[in-house]
Amino acid sequence: MDKQKLIDTHKRIAPYIHRTPVMTSRLINQEAGAELYFKCENFQGMGAYKLRGATNAILQLSDAQRPKGVVTHSSGNFAQALSLAAQRLGVDAHIVMPSSAPKVKVEGVKTYGGKIYICDPTLEAREAEADRIAKETGATFMHPSNDLEVILGQGTAAIELLQDHPDLEFLVTPIGGGGLIAGSALAAHYFGNNCQVIGGEPFEVDDAYRSFHSGKIESNETTNTIADGLKTILGSNTFPIIQKYVQDIIRVTEEEIVAAMKLIWERMKIIVEPSSAVALAAVLREPLRFRKKKVGIVISGGNVDLGNLPF
Amino acid sequence: MDKQKLIDTHKRIAPYIHRTPVMTSRLINQEAGAELYFKCENFQGMGAYKLRGATNAILQLSDAQRPKGVVTHSSGNFAQALSLAAQRLGVDAHIVMPSSAPKVKVEGVKTYGGKIYICDPTLEAREAEADRIAKETGATFMHPSNDLEVILGQGTAAIELLQDHPDLEFLVTPIGGGGLIAGSALAAHYFGNNCQVIGGEPFEVDDAYRSFHSGKIESNETTNTIADGLKTILGSNTFPIIQKYVQDIIRVTEEEIVAAMKLIWERMKIIVEPSSAVALAAVLREPLRFRKKKVGIVISGGNVDLGNLPF
Repeated sequence: MDKQKLIDTHKRIAPYIHRTPVMTSRLINQEAGAELYFKCENFQGMGAYKLRGATNAILQLSDAQRPKGVVTHSSGNFAQALSLAAQRLGVDAHIVMPSSAPKVKVEGVKTYGGKIYICDPTLEAREAEADRIAKETGATFMHPSNDLEVILGQGTAAIELLQDHPDLEFLVTPIGGGGLIAGSALAAHYFGNNCQVIGGEPFEVDDAYRSFHSGKIESNETTNTIADGLKTILGSNTFPIIQKYVQDIIRVTEEEIVAAMKLIWERMKIIVEPSSAVALAAVLREPLRFRKKKVGIVISGGNVDLGNLPF
Repeated sequence: MDKQKLIDTHKRIAPYIHRTPVMTSRLINQEAGAELYFKCENFQGMGAYKLRGATNAILQLSDAQRPKGVVTHSSGNFAQALSLAAQRLGVDAHIVMPSSAPKVKVEGVKTYGGKIYICDPTLEAREAEADRIAKETGATFMHPSNDLEVILGQGTAAIELLQDHPDLEFLVTPIGGGGLIAGSALAAHYFGNNCQVIGGEPFEVDDAYRSFHSGKIESNETTNTIADGLKTILGSNTFPIIQKYVQDIIRVTEEEIVAAMKLIWERMKIIVEPSSAVALAAVLREPLRFRKKKVGIVISGGNVDLGNLPF
């Protein structure tokens, strides 16, 4: 994972993604006591940063792989991302979704032409179904977070943020499977100027926090969080990168997530999903650490079921 | 109202307002069958275009008027706008609000340091209270929409939109008191290239539509609309400008307003208030008229009570 790989990745996917804006809010800065720069991947195609990784992974398929399509399992955003990237690049996408996936995300996959397979909402069921499809169709399996090309793609949001604001002292992202924070940490390492990378994670699914401290990949016994994108656990590729390049992980309560989400909606007038609010919640939870610092926050996505809001 | 006045106004207020972004949405363009350019005044300071007019009006106060402050009556956005503009410019703001005003807007006025006076939710009660305050304090009354300096200020959003996209064939805004559309129509007349100006208005408060066709200012018997910013009627200054420079007014149902609002929230990931959605609803209602046209839409604001959403 050298610097050139990140540069090549950004160049490769740039024609297929939006360079999303960086927004600020005077009122949220006041509340946080810090200078916050929000990289708005909720404005990315299909509404989340995951289009970056999916696009990169598909562009890296071989000529032999491409006609056989791709398959993944995802509770939502990666499913939509792979569907849209595949549609744009003329590749078939088979998408395994748990029956618990938000309706708006299932609809999104349909809109983008992905072929949907619903399964039980367990990791085992998802993996088994994806495995079956890969064997039957010859489609290439793409992991939503642990794939190296996916990780590189996800890191490009942080590259852009650091191009716009090279002097960030912190970069904060949510942690689910770890693809976003691993890519972002690589970007901060190669493109930042002593930029510390911090993960935000719900107490309710604090597997990454526990993994970070125990030194091995931990899992969650329950996944009772509103941050539906953060229920997955770290992988064999994301975890070592996180161990090496991430400085800390801050856990937040469900109440803090909802409050941060409401703050962003009310003050910034943008729609962010609960998983994205976790990063701001982490900053608000530790005001002393971030006091007067320049902090980049990756707003990971904006796909929310409007019929089912927490306020 | 010559072109130079608009140019001077924009120059005067530019240091105090955001140059808001223009956003587009591939999916909404598909649905509309047109090319839409959204001027995002929901990202304006205090969350609405009204900061423009309020700032201009205060900057035009005489040295004698300034120390005595300003007074207005407003159901919401102009109240916040005048409070914030006054606070920034060191002027006292007395704000008369109807008891029916959304809580989020009352809170906004408090945040921005406006002095609040609650009255009955009728135009008569609002006017009487503002009149009393003006007499007692010597504050200069500023009408939320009918003041000429306010109208000029509101027109600057359309100036910027036309600077960014000079070849717009249509410009669509909501109509309440008429300040936004009157200012926008002046801007389109002087800065557009045969740009037609269309108003969007709820059927439930279609006073402007009826005024436009009868040739005299009509009022509403009821104001039963979700578009809380559009309940006011045209004035002696806004109406003649609308008669001269606005081409048509399209009425929309409450269902169409909510559907357009939901579409913007889901597809563009931005928070817009119901009054703003009226403009998109008007475009979606008449697909033949706008087919394949370049259409500018002024998103007037994003101040929504999140505890009281229509979906």
